[in-house]
Amino acid sequence: MRRAVVLLSGGMDSATTLAVAVSEGYECHALSVRYGQRHAEEIERSIALAQALAAASHRIVDADLAFAGGSVLTDPSREVPRRRLDEVASGGIPTTYVPARNTVLLALAVALAESIGSRDLFIGANAVDYSGYPDCRPEFLSAFEELANVATRAGLSGDSFRVHAPLLRETKGGIVRRALALGVDLRITISCYDPKPGGRQCGTCDACLLREKGFREAGVVDPAP
Amino acid sequence: MRRAVVLLSGGMDSATTLAVAVSEGYECHALSVRYGQRHAEEIERSIALAQALAAASHRIVDADLAFAGGSVLTDPSREVPRRRLDEVASGGIPTTYVPARNTVLLALAVALAESIGSRDLFIGANAVDYSGYPDCRPEFLSAFEELANVATRAGLSGDSFRVHAPLLRETKGGIVRRALALGVDLRITISCYDPKPGGRQCGTCDACLLREKGFREAGVVDPAP
Repeated sequence: MRRAVVLLSGGMDSATTLAVAVSEGYECHALSVRYGQRHAEEIERSIALAQALAAASHRIVDADLAFAGGSVLTDPSREVPRRRLDEVASGGIPTTYVPARNTVLLALAVALAESIGSRDLFIGANAVDYSGYPDCRPEFLSAFEELANVATRAGLSGDSFRVHAPLLRETKGGIVRRALALGVDLRITISCYDPKPGGRQCGTCDACLLREKGFREAGVVDPAP
Repeated sequence: MRRAVVLLSGGMDSATTLAVAVSEGYECHALSVRYGQRHAEEIERSIALAQALAAASHRIVDADLAFAGGSVLTDPSREVPRRRLDEVASGGIPTTYVPARNTVLLALAVALAESIGSRDLFIGANAVDYSGYPDCRPEFLSAFEELANVATRAGLSGDSFRVHAPLLRETKGGIVRRALALGVDLRITISCYDPKPGGRQCGTCDACLLREKGFREAGVVDPAP
């Protein structure tokens, strides 16, 4: 059974990605990262998701990105932007972008993969209905794959790393449909950047707007509060 | 004055790299990472070095790499290898290699650089007299540069990141000579992977052997205990 390392944030996309990897027959080792995000609630969700989706293991790791500043997501004193969905789609790189986040997440996934003998990394990146982050695009994922293969013992051995992003070219509606088809319990997931006490979604941040769009397109009601 | 982010470990190579960056006129922001290394003594040294070399700022950041296992350097229960210098040079990738370490370090440097408006990253990587780590080679550094430029706001703006490794093709003897010419106080630096109580170098790990080679080639006595 091939092993995979799956980055799991607690959101809908990474949960669905884990379900895809499981359905493809991988022994899945989930990895969640506390990087100083304001919505640390997602880490709690990742624990429940890893169990619900029968991950072979789940690790929660600390890697501080708040130290660098530069993002609303790691600085609770700044305001999460509230805007219309068409503004999200056309607005360029938003203030919720966290510099170098996906590079750090994938690097930690490589570290684990190299150590447990896995060459398959899964990430829930999406480049269709997304917030405009540069490190969610296909160019970034290819560049990371190349990097991993010159950076590591594994890569040099000829048994190359592969970065899988099965939702990369999916719409949010497509992601919801895929999640449901794979039996992902979307009640557990949280997408919100600024959750209210008790973990209720705010309904007005970019992530909430995109999630809402997904359920609307799929024609189903979001089961999460 | 152009800003640079300089990775600073407390060792001879990164201290000299900081001195090079300062001498080239950069406003230098030093960055040290506690990644779970057994030789955490190096972090103490980095504080003194950043001061001695007049860094504009110095940050110490936590990013756990010990969680992944796979390295003697993050697992104090394993033995640091003791071997001859010719074995170091010809032995392939040793057990002291930390999977994905330089990728994580450079990613954290990118995060800081993006946030403070720097495009110049300095790392003390060396590919001549080194321990055979894949992520110290020119191929790795070029691949990281490419990655940084697709991963970030800065890279996309056209004002590209540059990864500077001024010691990449230097012998250890050359590094010692350069350090002395730039006035680096090498007493403060520590290279040892397995320092004794009080921070004394063990004298027999790969890092100690390479350091000794450097001083021998430069014809000077190592001032560190």
